[in-house]
Amino acid sequence: MSQQSFTIRTRPRSFEDITGRIAGIVQASNVQCGLCNVFLRHTSASLLICENADVAVRRDLERYMARTAPEDGSQYEHDAEGPDDMPSHIRSMLTGVSLSVPVGQGRLLLGTWQGIYLWEHRAASHERQIVVTVQGC
Amino acid sequence: MSQQSFTIRTRPRSFEDITGRIAGIVQASNVQCGLCNVFLRHTSASLLICENADVAVRRDLERYMARTAPEDGSQYEHDAEGPDDMPSHIRSMLTGVSLSVPVGQGRLLLGTWQGIYLWEHRAASHERQIVVTVQGC
Amino acid sequence: MSQQSFTIRTRPRSFEDITGRIAGIVQASNVQCGLCNVFLRHTSASLLICENADVAVRRDLERYMARTAPEDGSQYEHDAEGPDDMPSHIRSMLTGVSLSVPVGQGRLLLGTWQGIYLWEHRAASHERQIVVTVQGC
Repeated sequence: MSQQSFTIRTRPRSFEDITGRIAGIVQASNVQCGLCNVFLRHTSASLLICENADVAVRRDLERYMARTAPEDGSQYEHDAEGPDDMPSHIRSMLTGVSLSVPVGQGRLLLGTWQGIYLWEHRAASHERQIVVTVQGC
Repeated sequence: MSQQSFTIRTRPRSFEDITGRIAGIVQASNVQCGLCNVFLRHTSASLLICENADVAVRRDLERYMARTAPEDGSQYEHDAEGPDDMPSHIRSMLTGVSLSVPVGQGRLLLGTWQGIYLWEHRAASHERQIVVTVQGC
Repeated sequence: MSQQSFTIRTRPRSFEDITGRIAGIVQASNVQCGLCNVFLRHTSASLLICENADVAVRRDLERYMARTAPEDGSQYEHDAEGPDDMPSHIRSMLTGVSLSVPVGQGRLLLGTWQGIYLWEHRAASHERQIVVTVQGC
């Protein structure tokens, strides 16, 4: 079992591919078979397993979120940090901040088309903290 | 490793902060480093990691859900338990009933602004069962 | 601890009940107390814990998804595999591909009305791979 934290400086409203980073932590843990949990310590960004081939998929997901949780101040009571504040909490609620991925033969058992992304929902760059916990034998 | 269950009597359409309760179970488990899973044994309520400072955030999340899954009988076939029945299943589908949070130095590694909430989606008070499993060393 | 994979041939836009299959793997693992993770290696289907009594609930969830992520080409840039392609990725983003369920006394601690479903979002049948990891004592 092994636990590591790292921070990532995000770009505004972006998907940051952290698959390689997580895979490296799994490899260094020497866990051959078990589970890897990735946890984001924030409530206005999220973690997502997403199609990793066509970047247009991620652009469409971003547009979907902009439609379902628009930057429309008349809909929200909470706007302490601007018009992108409350939409970001809604996006984070819908997608989540904790992901568990199985580990087999010492590597993440992701599907061929699956990548792990940190999705920054805020309109500005942020420093985000991630905790990775690998459990198994 | 340790596993405990507890029940909570919810208020209608409310967020019940269970962070302290979960933290207490983690502390009693003596697990220093590992993972804590929280599981809700129901399909019309959910578990959520949410901003814990401004209660207006939770009111906005509640209003978002009321918009995306309205109590509009014409949209649903299932209404065995009233107009709030099917919207509650939709809300639970969107937010989930299982949460894993890392444990380090014997405590939950939540971010500063993260709390763990049981979100009651039904329009009446319910008795809800939660199972907490702590794994690690 | 134990890890097993299996594949399932889905029907188009369907909910496949995999509760019995997962329960069998838990039983065979001889884990008495711990956690069972179910992971789907795809991004256009998802895993869901859902009400298992009235099939109308699942029909209503399907209709909700058809409303929130319609097959409307004008909304999406990505349509490599047809009009159901991008809506399937949105549905998968909203519901997730990884589920953790506690295990106690050698069995899944699901609530009375909870079942585990693979939700096929594509309009055609697919072969889907699932990895089940059971950890505990």
